[in-house]
Amino acid sequence: MKRRIFHNYFLFVLVAALLNEMWIIKLTTEGRNNQFHPDERIEDRYQDIQMSGTDFNTYYNAIFEDVIYFPVAESTTDATLQVNFVDSWMAERTYGGKRGHEGTDIMASKNVSGVYPVVSMTDGIVRSKGWLEKGGYRIGIESPSGVYFYYAHLHSYADVEIGDTIEAGTVLGLMGDSGYGKEGTTGQFPVHLHVGIYIYPQEKEMSVNPFWVLKYIENQRIRLLYSDIG
Amino acid sequence: MKRRIFHNYFLFVLVAALLNEMWIIKLTTEGRNNQFHPDERIEDRYQDIQMSGTDFNTYYNAIFEDVIYFPVAESTTDATLQVNFVDSWMAERTYGGKRGHEGTDIMASKNVSGVYPVVSMTDGIVRSKGWLEKGGYRIGIESPSGVYFYYAHLHSYADVEIGDTIEAGTVLGLMGDSGYGKEGTTGQFPVHLHVGIYIYPQEKEMSVNPFWVLKYIENQRIRLLYSDIG
Repeated sequence: MKRRIFHNYFLFVLVAALLNEMWIIKLTTEGRNNQFHPDERIEDRYQDIQMSGTDFNTYYNAIFEDVIYFPVAESTTDATLQVNFVDSWMAERTYGGKRGHEGTDIMASKNVSGVYPVVSMTDGIVRSKGWLEKGGYRIGIESPSGVYFYYAHLHSYADVEIGDTIEAGTVLGLMGDSGYGKEGTTGQFPVHLHVGIYIYPQEKEMSVNPFWVLKYIENQRIRLLYSDIG
Repeated sequence: MKRRIFHNYFLFVLVAALLNEMWIIKLTTEGRNNQFHPDERIEDRYQDIQMSGTDFNTYYNAIFEDVIYFPVAESTTDATLQVNFVDSWMAERTYGGKRGHEGTDIMASKNVSGVYPVVSMTDGIVRSKGWLEKGGYRIGIESPSGVYFYYAHLHSYADVEIGDTIEAGTVLGLMGDSGYGKEGTTGQFPVHLHVGIYIYPQEKEMSVNPFWVLKYIENQRIRLLYSDIG
């Protein structure tokens, strides 16, 4: 009996992992298959923002200098609760109109909502919280260097409010699959954390690729006691 | 007798490590002590370069996307041959006039020239090789995305020539302490590898901070059999 549960469990994890993989592959190759050139979308959006070489260096360093922790905590008890992510910058998305993906999706190896804790990558101030049609339950933190870190599709929030000053590693909520519809919509895609990073040249909002930042802190994990069993 | 050699050796490594550390601390705090604001120097140099938000994203991604290996190989036999590096972007340098440090110094834990192999971080084409007053024996590689990776202060070169197409991980030479004088000058500072990364907006050369890139590939080491003993 025990063995059978184990087998079923194993099969479930395997199927969940395969589904996740398929989804990632779909997301990241979709653009290429559709002859969608990633740069086209970026050019449409940010061609009108002008900056100097000096500004480049200031923003480039600001993106990295406040980042301390990877945004998903590691489980101290359940090694099956892994995450993975690839560079899907400007890969095509279709919900809400054809657009480029302005972020990085950190996929849950186990498709369970409300389990993986999402923590702040930086110190900062909570600037936004609540529902967005595309982002679902999201939270936004402004770091000391003025960079905006956006965490989307949450299952639920921790005890943090707009205006709160928080530290890197503070739990913001739990990873989920909210979004792509009216408030409360879930299950439109596998459980994952969408991370966005935004800078503000000329007071205009502009997204940059979070993938390199996430690779840079991939091994800086907050370790917490959590599990989806019991 | 054996014990005494070990003790002397240990003392030597300890002193070398301390000297190295002191030098790093000196380099990285010098600017602050002298009321030298890092940004001033960047502004002087790159204020005249103009780019769009689109260009920002293109260059920002180009800096990272070709990088595969950390530029110093790991020894398979001698665990004492370590390296370390800190963010010294725009810290003050005085040789050849007061200026900001446009790169990252990877320090040898053991101050030995001609031992640590320097490998290319990227695929690319060898664009420069030979002596520079500040850089000593340097080599420059242009990556597929058009980013220029500059490796300076080498002890000696591997069998690579200008125009050669190389792969990431190709040995370029050995780490040294050349530079700060006429051709062949050595020993003006501890053994280290200076890494520079340059982009070319509007055909103008502009350096960007290699520190984040080096942290990103810190654990992607080529492993080679090398030692300073025998």
